[in-house]
Amino acid sequence: MRILGIDPGYGLLGYGIVDMHGNRFSPVSFGSISTAADAVFPDRLAEIYRELGALIEEYAPEAMAIEELFFNKNVTTGIKVAQARGVVLLLASQHALPVYEYTPSQIKQGLVGYGKAEKAQVQSMVKTILHLAEVPRPDDTADALAVAICHGHAAPGLSRFKGVL
Amino acid sequence: MRILGIDPGYGLLGYGIVDMHGNRFSPVSFGSISTAADAVFPDRLAEIYRELGALIEEYAPEAMAIEELFFNKNVTTGIKVAQARGVVLLLASQHALPVYEYTPSQIKQGLVGYGKAEKAQVQSMVKTILHLAEVPRPDDTADALAVAICHGHAAPGLSRFKGVL
Repeated sequence: MRILGIDPGYGLLGYGIVDMHGNRFSPVSFGSISTAADAVFPDRLAEIYRELGALIEEYAPEAMAIEELFFNKNVTTGIKVAQARGVVLLLASQHALPVYEYTPSQIKQGLVGYGKAEKAQVQSMVKTILHLAEVPRPDDTADALAVAICHGHAAPGLSRFKGVL
Repeated sequence: MRILGIDPGYGLLGYGIVDMHGNRFSPVSFGSISTAADAVFPDRLAEIYRELGALIEEYAPEAMAIEELFFNKNVTTGIKVAQARGVVLLLASQHALPVYEYTPSQIKQGLVGYGKAEKAQVQSMVKTILHLAEVPRPDDTADALAVAICHGHAAPGLSRFKGVL
């Protein structure tokens, strides 16, 4: 199963595509999409749409995993992230990818086995599980790979999770 | 100048297209796009993308006017509306429509001349300005026409407004 994990954002959007064979994961492609800070906001959304759409066409994932959105901090930033997330979900529908949502604690639980794990522990597990030489940078990329792996772990017993959109 | 006004939503999205000649407005097309409540959320976004995209192609507006998003009430609903709004802004970029944002009080000021006007006063002005027999229904449609008219009033002296994305 090929899974596309997304850490949504409008300035920087992390993506991570992994293959899962049995209980083993291998990385396919990961990185981040950055948009021009001096572009008007709708054009930044269009850039995300083009670039992420091209990645989906190139790598043909079978499912999308994405973190649930919470508004803890800055609401203005949160609204912008939500708008970018809408573009990501639109692409999922247009490419017939089922979307699975996970909370931050589900992701930590899924990778480290402990819902209050530190960010560094999660990133270290991403590196180990994918047999990478280093923790992927930026954090957005590591987070995207983490949610993809979380979904891989969850998929065999998905009814345990409420996060199906 | 042909203006597309949008009242964003994921279950019901209001739109209103108006032509402005000098100081006079005429309605071109208005209504609402409703999405299936039993569809998964990404598919509802895709429905908005298809239907609003078809309207933009059919009527070829030259600008989009949309209300600024605030989160006063339900944050979960607000996140969904923001995600739908992202799809609307994406369409604007893809069709090369400049986007103009207005606050609720700017819209009231623009139509009634008073930033704290009642909703019914705004709707009554929409009916009068567009020479309609009745106030358009649902409210989302009337709100979309209101923001389109607001932009028409504002456009000649746009530097007065901060709302350019």
